[in-house]
Amino acid sequence: MSVEITIQPITAAAFAPYGDLIDCAGDPDAIINLGKCGRYNDRAQMAFDGARAGLSLFNAEIRTLPYEFNLLERHPLGSQAFVPMSNDGFLVIVAPDQNDKPGTPVAFETKPGQAINFHKGTWHGVLTPLSGTGHFAVVDRIGDGNNLQEFSLPTPHIVVRG
Amino acid sequence: MSVEITIQPITAAAFAPYGDLIDCAGDPDAIINLGKCGRYNDRAQMAFDGARAGLSLFNAEIRTLPYEFNLLERHPLGSQAFVPMSNDGFLVIVAPDQNDKPGTPVAFETKPGQAINFHKGTWHGVLTPLSGTGHFAVVDRIGDGNNLQEFSLPTPHIVVRG
Repeated sequence: MSVEITIQPITAAAFAPYGDLIDCAGDPDAIINLGKCGRYNDRAQMAFDGARAGLSLFNAEIRTLPYEFNLLERHPLGSQAFVPMSNDGFLVIVAPDQNDKPGTPVAFETKPGQAINFHKGTWHGVLTPLSGTGHFAVVDRIGDGNNLQEFSLPTPHIVVRG
Repeated sequence: MSVEITIQPITAAAFAPYGDLIDCAGDPDAIINLGKCGRYNDRAQMAFDGARAGLSLFNAEIRTLPYEFNLLERHPLGSQAFVPMSNDGFLVIVAPDQNDKPGTPVAFETKPGQAINFHKGTWHGVLTPLSGTGHFAVVDRIGDGNNLQEFSLPTPHIVVRG
């Protein structure tokens, strides 16, 4: 017995309840560096409650579809941004909160050149690249306090393409 | 009349006077995500004086060698981290400070999978990818105040490979 989830195309609007979709779509906010660089400014709603921002790297195993999972987690004290360091999309699993437990999970896949930022407290799956190097830069909260809550779904969920 | 600069291989030690070299070399600080991800934790000395951290994207033109420049800049109020979003190295030009002006410039080239963070106040060249998509995530200071100083070298400098 398992639950199948079909990947949805990610858009800023569809992802907005969970976080920020960050890319170079549209016009930049500023042109800098003598005209040779566009700046898409300040695109993530970041939070680092009572602590500070840190920059870390994650080296994650490449996954394949269909992808089975039952672990979700959230960070109650801060946001968490994921920037792929290769030109690849990646699988993003999130869930709305329902009384301090995750509701029905939703799966998105980013496009190459896109990063995402989970808002503070958003339930999400672990980092799941589907191609590329598996190297990501992560901007999240560095400090004391319990900033990790995990939840195991009672039924395995399986992510597939539509 | 111009000054030629030969690119040096980048190492954490050689880059230390200017900033942090950030990569997945060596053992991770933690294994997370049920054993499927290594975390290289908190690898940048970030500063956001009197303001906050922001995450922006830069879309920079790809440059070719030999690369001629005379503009250097620095950010007196904060650090600035550059994360390439394709698996490519990029050219990094820095200079020591000498009485509030840049001293002799130094050129490094990162390897694929490496990011860098300029320490607060480090003189550096503009963003100069040599290959890849030219998309970078940038973590720097978002806030009021004059956080940009520019300096035009009186003589053009030309960066070449050794």
